[in-house]
Amino acid sequence: MLVQRYKDMLSGKSVIRQLSEFATSRGQEIGYENVFDYSLGNPSVPVPKEFTDVMIRLLSEKNPMELHGYSPSLGITSVREAIAASLEKRFGIPYRKEHIFMASGAAGALAHAFRLVTEPGDEILTFAPFFPEYHPYVDLTGAVLKVVPPNTETFQINFEAFEEMLSEKVKAVLINTPNNPSGIVYSAETLQGLTDILREKSAKYGHEIYLISDEPYREIVFEGVDAPCVSRFYDNTIMCYSFSKSLSLPGERIGYVAVNPACPDAETMVNMCGQISRGIGHNCPPSIIQLAVAQVLDKTADLKVYETNMNLIYKELMDLGFTCVKPGGTFYIFPKALEEDSIAFCQKALKYDLILVPADTFGAPGFFRMAYCIDTEKVERSLEALRKFVKTEYPASQGK
Amino acid sequence: MLVQRYKDMLSGKSVIRQLSEFATSRGQEIGYENVFDYSLGNPSVPVPKEFTDVMIRLLSEKNPMELHGYSPSLGITSVREAIAASLEKRFGIPYRKEHIFMASGAAGALAHAFRLVTEPGDEILTFAPFFPEYHPYVDLTGAVLKVVPPNTETFQINFEAFEEMLSEKVKAVLINTPNNPSGIVYSAETLQGLTDILREKSAKYGHEIYLISDEPYREIVFEGVDAPCVSRFYDNTIMCYSFSKSLSLPGERIGYVAVNPACPDAETMVNMCGQISRGIGHNCPPSIIQLAVAQVLDKTADLKVYETNMNLIYKELMDLGFTCVKPGGTFYIFPKALEEDSIAFCQKALKYDLILVPADTFGAPGFFRMAYCIDTEKVERSLEALRKFVKTEYPASQGK
Repeated sequence: MLVQRYKDMLSGKSVIRQLSEFATSRGQEIGYENVFDYSLGNPSVPVPKEFTDVMIRLLSEKNPMELHGYSPSLGITSVREAIAASLEKRFGIPYRKEHIFMASGAAGALAHAFRLVTEPGDEILTFAPFFPEYHPYVDLTGAVLKVVPPNTETFQINFEAFEEMLSEKVKAVLINTPNNPSGIVYSAETLQGLTDILREKSAKYGHEIYLISDEPYREIVFEGVDAPCVSRFYDNTIMCYSFSKSLSLPGERIGYVAVNPACPDAETMVNMCGQISRGIGHNCPPSIIQLAVAQVLDKTADLKVYETNMNLIYKELMDLGFTCVKPGGTFYIFPKALEEDSIAFCQKALKYDLILVPADTFGAPGFFRMAYCIDTEKVERSLEALRKFVKTEYPASQGK
Repeated sequence: MLVQRYKDMLSGKSVIRQLSEFATSRGQEIGYENVFDYSLGNPSVPVPKEFTDVMIRLLSEKNPMELHGYSPSLGITSVREAIAASLEKRFGIPYRKEHIFMASGAAGALAHAFRLVTEPGDEILTFAPFFPEYHPYVDLTGAVLKVVPPNTETFQINFEAFEEMLSEKVKAVLINTPNNPSGIVYSAETLQGLTDILREKSAKYGHEIYLISDEPYREIVFEGVDAPCVSRFYDNTIMCYSFSKSLSLPGERIGYVAVNPACPDAETMVNMCGQISRGIGHNCPPSIIQLAVAQVLDKTADLKVYETNMNLIYKELMDLGFTCVKPGGTFYIFPKALEEDSIAFCQKALKYDLILVPADTFGAPGFFRMAYCIDTEKVERSLEALRKFVKTEYPASQGK
């Protein structure tokens, strides 16, 4: 009598994972350095040295019972204070520790956010293209994730489709800017439009519609791009943050929920997170990692490499005649495939040892994703393969 | 429209937490060293030096992208292999990595175990006295925790009550041996009796009844006490382990689920845990902590202090005329209060700066718990306070 829902999930294998497995096994044949693996969103630059130094210092100097002791259920107080102060300084919003709940990465933060504001059967809207893990994250709570179709011209919001889908059953809207997989950053205009609609519909329906803002790529924004702070646009914003990408430590599972101080229920919501944790077995991220990140809040890994890689790839894609919105941040780019069936397109690319991810599961069929969090030297070598792939398989392409 | 269920939980304040807060504020008045705080189950001996050394070595020597990279969803392969090998060596059961799922402490392990085998509405039985957090852990999954009343003579199992409550709706039985709060270790006879009944009823009802064995105190067993391995008694055992107590690092959130290799669905269940994680936002315990514990699997903190403390307290309790089953392990002792109302009893103890926890929420009214994970020197000083308390408040007590 195992639970069928989870058993059934075992047969559905993720496309990204299959591709990544292909890359590994192909790497065993020809050397992984020769596989141009653009499948996985794993940071490719090391954690800043300061983090390592802080960790070693904590281990060497701090009383081990304090260091490894239980964290309070909302997170270590001094850590919450440090994060609140850092957010206030950065965004000019008066965050206090009472607005911060420490969570195990963005996945942990989102798990709490969804449970705060939805009962089973309630709807959460998100916008294509979107991170496909949002489906199990939401659906397994009993709420229902519905996906607003993309504006494929800009990958900003398709407002017409959004307004149509924003029914009374919707209790939260989930956004991700800078965006995985498109690399797009929502403009101030987009955020203003979005939140105007949320205010109007909240009033009309007589209940809050919360804005859940998944921001793991906040620190990866390219030159000249304005990445507005989502919380400034809307009181009922639940920010979900992860240090995975900014500090290059996705395995250490550290992030937080920050409820906008302007949200009338902010403190209650943070306290509720502590109760939600009891039901899902969280009990806080690791103490030592909490203490260490609190000391490097103004640091990031050396993220510039992602912009270098983006520029190289974007230029080549343009030269080869692809249609592609230029990314404003992240380490993803999201071009249109050169045939309608992007699965077939990505399949053909494998012959050239190019691992590209078709975007059907991201809610934008016909497109594909490249995660360019790899060494620049490898990006450069991959361009030759990309050229060969396009010229051979799509000789009619309108490239220069 | 916040979710009422979690909001309602905010008003219920845990007795343990209230007492612990009292201890802290009293400590500010008279110095914490003068407050005999037996409220919290926090390890009082440091992590073994080997763990700290391994952590520093990993930080200094390992490639940071590997060290802090994403763990596979079931846990790091080499870590699962090391744990399986260690369990095989220890218990003679042929565990392989396919039977191990890495989890964030026992709370994380239990969160997965409950979801593996129960649908909302299904029942899980546990035995009083029991860890009160089991209630939110189970109830918030939608399953129902029912508590079998205690055998107060021995704190082994009350089999008569158990058989009566073991209806067709029961999908799992949850045990905790060595036990929090009683300190009792289930004997081989108890485990044989329990699992005979489970086999009989599984056959009768035509569905498996899983045994979920919560074992965070497995390494804290006192001299001359036999602590049988639960999994040896029953094929369908889901072991939930945490390193919190054995290595004194409760804040680092590391443990595992080990499904008995004899369980026909063992490998499927471990894979299902990876799916359950997606719904509750786990995504594995921290990579660096996984890698570090895997290198110290045969180490523990210096746990002998707990036995020393137990012997001191047990002798004093006996001398003062208490009724108390002698603990076989853990760092808890569970005497009968000297009046029927153990809440009133513990309230009176506060006047002597003794922080004792009434056992009503543990399912055994009339008893109280002392968590003697404190310095032996403090235990010794507390005995004078205990004597004064008993002689003053309960002069008729039958002590020597």
